[in-house]
Amino acid sequence: MKFLFIGDIVGSPGRKMVEEYLPRLKRRYQPTVTIMNGENAAHGKGITEKIYKQLLEAGAQVITMGNHTWDNKNIFEFIDDAKMMIRPANYPAGVPGEGIKYLRINDQEVAVINLIGRTFMGNPNDDPFQKADELVTEASARTSFIFVDFHAETTSEKQAMGWFLSGRVSAVVGTHTHVQTADDRILDGGTAFLCDAGMTGPSDGILGMEREAIIRKFQTNLPTKFEVAEGREQLNGVFVKADPKTGKATTIERIRIDEAHPFFE
Amino acid sequence: MKFLFIGDIVGSPGRKMVEEYLPRLKRRYQPTVTIMNGENAAHGKGITEKIYKQLLEAGAQVITMGNHTWDNKNIFEFIDDAKMMIRPANYPAGVPGEGIKYLRINDQEVAVINLIGRTFMGNPNDDPFQKADELVTEASARTSFIFVDFHAETTSEKQAMGWFLSGRVSAVVGTHTHVQTADDRILDGGTAFLCDAGMTGPSDGILGMEREAIIRKFQTNLPTKFEVAEGREQLNGVFVKADPKTGKATTIERIRIDEAHPFFE
Amino acid sequence: MKFLFIGDIVGSPGRKMVEEYLPRLKRRYQPTVTIMNGENAAHGKGITEKIYKQLLEAGAQVITMGNHTWDNKNIFEFIDDAKMMIRPANYPAGVPGEGIKYLRINDQEVAVINLIGRTFMGNPNDDPFQKADELVTEASARTSFIFVDFHAETTSEKQAMGWFLSGRVSAVVGTHTHVQTADDRILDGGTAFLCDAGMTGPSDGILGMEREAIIRKFQTNLPTKFEVAEGREQLNGVFVKADPKTGKATTIERIRIDEAHPFFE
Amino acid sequence: MKFLFIGDIVGSPGRKMVEEYLPRLKRRYQPTVTIMNGENAAHGKGITEKIYKQLLEAGAQVITMGNHTWDNKNIFEFIDDAKMMIRPANYPAGVPGEGIKYLRINDQEVAVINLIGRTFMGNPNDDPFQKADELVTEASARTSFIFVDFHAETTSEKQAMGWFLSGRVSAVVGTHTHVQTADDRILDGGTAFLCDAGMTGPSDGILGMEREAIIRKFQTNLPTKFEVAEGREQLNGVFVKADPKTGKATTIERIRIDEAHPFFE
Ligand SMILES: [Fe+2]
Ligand SMILES: [Fe+2]
Ligand SMILES: [Fe+2]
Ligand SMILES: [Fe+2]
Ligand SMILES: [Fe+2]
Ligand SMILES: [Fe+2]
Ligand SMILES: [Fe+2]
Ligand SMILES: [Fe+2]
Repeated sequence: MKFLFIGDIVGSPGRKMVEEYLPRLKRRYQPTVTIMNGENAAHGKGITEKIYKQLLEAGAQVITMGNHTWDNKNIFEFIDDAKMMIRPANYPAGVPGEGIKYLRINDQEVAVINLIGRTFMGNPNDDPFQKADELVTEASARTSFIFVDFHAETTSEKQAMGWFLSGRVSAVVGTHTHVQTADDRILDGGTAFLCDAGMTGPSDGILGMEREAIIRKFQTNLPTKFEVAEGREQLNGVFVKADPKTGKATTIERIRIDEAHPFFE
Repeated sequence: MKFLFIGDIVGSPGRKMVEEYLPRLKRRYQPTVTIMNGENAAHGKGITEKIYKQLLEAGAQVITMGNHTWDNKNIFEFIDDAKMMIRPANYPAGVPGEGIKYLRINDQEVAVINLIGRTFMGNPNDDPFQKADELVTEASARTSFIFVDFHAETTSEKQAMGWFLSGRVSAVVGTHTHVQTADDRILDGGTAFLCDAGMTGPSDGILGMEREAIIRKFQTNLPTKFEVAEGREQLNGVFVKADPKTGKATTIERIRIDEAHPFFE
Repeated sequence: MKFLFIGDIVGSPGRKMVEEYLPRLKRRYQPTVTIMNGENAAHGKGITEKIYKQLLEAGAQVITMGNHTWDNKNIFEFIDDAKMMIRPANYPAGVPGEGIKYLRINDQEVAVINLIGRTFMGNPNDDPFQKADELVTEASARTSFIFVDFHAETTSEKQAMGWFLSGRVSAVVGTHTHVQTADDRILDGGTAFLCDAGMTGPSDGILGMEREAIIRKFQTNLPTKFEVAEGREQLNGVFVKADPKTGKATTIERIRIDEAHPFFE
Repeated sequence: MKFLFIGDIVGSPGRKMVEEYLPRLKRRYQPTVTIMNGENAAHGKGITEKIYKQLLEAGAQVITMGNHTWDNKNIFEFIDDAKMMIRPANYPAGVPGEGIKYLRINDQEVAVINLIGRTFMGNPNDDPFQKADELVTEASARTSFIFVDFHAETTSEKQAMGWFLSGRVSAVVGTHTHVQTADDRILDGGTAFLCDAGMTGPSDGILGMEREAIIRKFQTNLPTKFEVAEGREQLNGVFVKADPKTGKATTIERIRIDEAHPFFE
C-alpha cells in the first residue's frame, strides 16, 4: 500500500505545480492512493467546487482541509456532494461535511482521516485525541491502512498525536505550517510520521503569500490584504509505503521540488 | 567565515550529544565560530552556571537562549558574568543580560544576535523587527558577519524575519519548535535561512520530554511534571558558510544525527 | 428559593471576610442555599481539604471552582470525598471530581452547576454550551432551581451562556475576573444574570495579589512569585431570589462590601 | 474639573442614545470635557468621518478608540484631519493618528490619553506601561488634568495600569469588554478608577451584536456575520470630578441608563 500526500496547495501556483508534477510523481512512486491538502487552494483561502473538481481531475483521490475550510463561502453549497473531500473530524457536532473517508482500491479498503489541533489554532474544537481514538477504532475494524492528516500548529501536539496513534495507523502527517519538517521517521509501532509536509505553491512568499504585506503587518498591525505571491514555485509532500498485509509503514520519504531541488524521474 | 549552530540542547542527553559529536563536527566543518541554543540545557528548563561553563568547554563560543531563559533561577546570579551567553535582544528595557555578542576571531569580528518572536510566545516582548533593524544597523558598522538566532513559534514570523534581514546578515536560523525544518535555502540577498534548526537531546520524547506525561496533559489538562525523556538521542543543527569578504552566505547545510542518520566523518 | 453566592475567595483575607460577614449576610438574605467559589482559597491558588472544611463550617453548602482547581496538589487526595465541592463540568472525561451537585433542602431539590469558558482560558476544555445543555436537561427533570457558576474570562462568552440558558435556569453568574460587573439583570426568560460576581479578599492588590510584583511582571515578563496582598479587604457576591413554584428569577442584587461600602444590617 | 466619559458606542442604537441622553447628562453633570469611545460607532466596526462629526456635534470633545480602530477603512482617509480623535498611543511607530490630545477649556489645559492592553488583545502592540509613563510625564509638565482610556481585556492589566498611574492622573477608565464593572473607586493617590465603563447601544445583544449569531459561533466555530442587535438600548459611562487645583479625583460615579435604570434629571 503506497500513499502519496501533497501538502497545502496554495492558489493557482499550487494547482499549477500539481498539474505539472503529479503525473511524474505518480510514475515514480506508483501510489495506491493520492491525498492532497486543499485548504488554501482558492487564492490561499479555502476551496471552490471548481477547484475541488480540478484537483480530482489532476489526480487526487482524497482532499483534506484545515482551519481555512470555510474561508471560501462557496463550500457550504457543495460540501455535501463533495464525497472525496474531508474536513477536520473533530469539528463540533452539527458542522457540515465528514472527517473520515473510506476508499476501495484494488479490492482493498483505505481510510483517510483529517484532524485539527487545538493549540494556537483559533476557536477551540473538540479534543483531537479522543476523536482520533474513536475514528481509528472504527476504521481498524475495516482496514489496516489508515492515513491521518493532522492539521496543527505546534510540534508538541503533532508529536503527541504521532505517538498516540503509533502502531495503530500507517501514517500521521502534519500540515498547516506550510514548511516541511526534516523529522521523517517511522515510530516504533510502524507508523510513518512527519510533523509537516510543507506547502505547494509560491517559493518566495511568506507561507505562499506576498511577503511585503505580511512583514508590514508584523510591523504595524494595520489591516492588510494578503495576496498569493508570484514568481517561482515549490511542491512539498511525502510518500509512505506500508506493508501490504499489516499496514505497518516500512518507508517514509519526503518530497521537495523547487528551483534548487529539481525533480528527476 | 563558517558558522556551526547546534539547536536547543535538552538536558543531559543533549549535553552528552554535544560532547560526543562536537569534536567530530568541528573536524568536518572547521567552523570559525560555534553557537548553541542553551535554553533547555538544565533538565529541559533554562541553564545553570555549571552547564553554561560545560557547554563552553565542550566547544561553544556563544550560547543563545529563548523563552526558557529564566526557568532556572540560578541564571540571575551569573548572567551578568556570562559574557558568552546572550538572551533575546527584544526583551523589555531593564531585563538582565545582553542580546548581541561581538566576537573577535582571527582578526575578524563576528556578531551573534538572539531575538524572540511575539506570535504564540507567551508574554509580549518588544517588536523583534524593530530591534533586529537597530542591532543589525549597529553591527553592520563593525562587521559583515552577522548570525541571527530567531527563537519563535510560527513559520510566518520566522520567514518574515528572514526576508526582512535578507541581504543584511549572513544567516537567520530559527529555534524553539525543537523540530528541524527542511527549508534550508539562501535567500536572494545572500542570507542563509532555516525556519528551525531542531533540538539536541532525546529522540523518543515529545520535544525531548517524556511523552506519556505530555499526551496525558493534552487529554486531561491536569497539571503534569515534565521530565527529560530517556533512551536514544539526536543532534540537530546547521552549518553556514559565508563569503570571507562580503559576509554573503554561500552554503547552508542541515545537520541531523540520530540512530537512523549516523554521523560519518 | 433564595441563592446567596460569594465570588472567588482569595487566601486568608478572603476566608476572614467570609467568617466575618457570612452570618450577617445570612441574617439579611435568609438564603436557602449558599454557594462560594473557592478556586483561590488557599493562598490564591487552589484549595486544601482543611480550607474546604472551613468554608463549609463558615456556612457554604456548595463550593465551586475554576481554572485554579488543581493548583494545590492536595486536591487530588480529597476531591473524591469532597461531596459539596464541584469543579467545571466541561473538563475532559477522566478528570476527577464532579461538575454538578444536587442538594435537598426543605424538601426541595436544588442543582448547582459549574462550567468553565474556553476563550482565553488556557488549555481547551470541552464545549461549555453542549455540556450546559446536557446538564440542564438532566437537572430540569429533577428540579426547577438551577444555579450556574460560569467561570470565564470574556463578557461575550458569559453573555452568550446567559442567553443560551435564559429561561431554563434560575441564575447564570460569572466568576474568574475577580471584578464585579454592574450588569445585573433578569434575562427575558426569568434567568438572573451577572457577568462576574467579583472576588472576596484583599482590596488593594491586583485581583487580590500583591500589586508591585504584578506590575513588574507586566513591565519585564520576568518570573515572579505572586503573594496574596495585605491590608484592607472586600467581599463581593450576589443574591438571587427565584419564584418558589417556577424557579424563575424575580430578584438579583449585587453585594459589595469594602471600606467605602460598609455592610449595614 | 469634571470629566464625562461614555463607553464604547455601538452602531446607530449607540449614537441614538448619545443624542437622546447626552444633553440631559450635561445638564446634570456640567462636564468640563466630554469623552466618548467610538471604536464601534459604525455598525459595530470602527468609525466613519460622518459619524466622527456626528459625535462631535452630539457633544463629544474627544473620541477615543481601541482594537477596532481600523475596522472601517474610511478612517485612513480622515484620521489625519480628525483632530479630536485619538487612537491607542502604544500602537507601533509609523501608524497614523495620535494617542494623546490636549484641549484648552476655560483657560485650563486637559490631556486625554488612549492606550491599549496587550493581554488577549490580538496582535501585540508596544508596552502600554512604558508608553503611559512617557505620555504622563510629558502631559504632567503641562497640566494636572489627565484622563486615560485604557482599552484592555483583562482586569489584571487594567488594575495594574490603575495602580501604576495612581497619583499621577485624574482618572484611569477601562473600555473594551462592553460591560460596566462595579469597582468604581478612587485609588490612594487620588486617581479615579473603573475597570470598564461599559457600552452604549443595544441592551439585548451580546456586546451589542445580534445574539443568535454569536451563540451559534461559539457552538460551531463556523464563519458568521455579526450585525448590531435591535431592540432596547442602554448607555453606560462614568463621571469623574477632580480637584480644580491639584487634579486629584474627588468623585467617581458610574452611569447606567437602560429600561430598568431610567434617567431622572
Ligand atoms: Fe494551509
Ligand atoms: Fe492551516
Ligand atoms: Fe527550546
Ligand atoms: Fe523555546
Ligand atoms: Fe479566581
Ligand atoms: Fe479563575
Ligand atoms: Fe468596543
Ligand atoms: Fe475593543
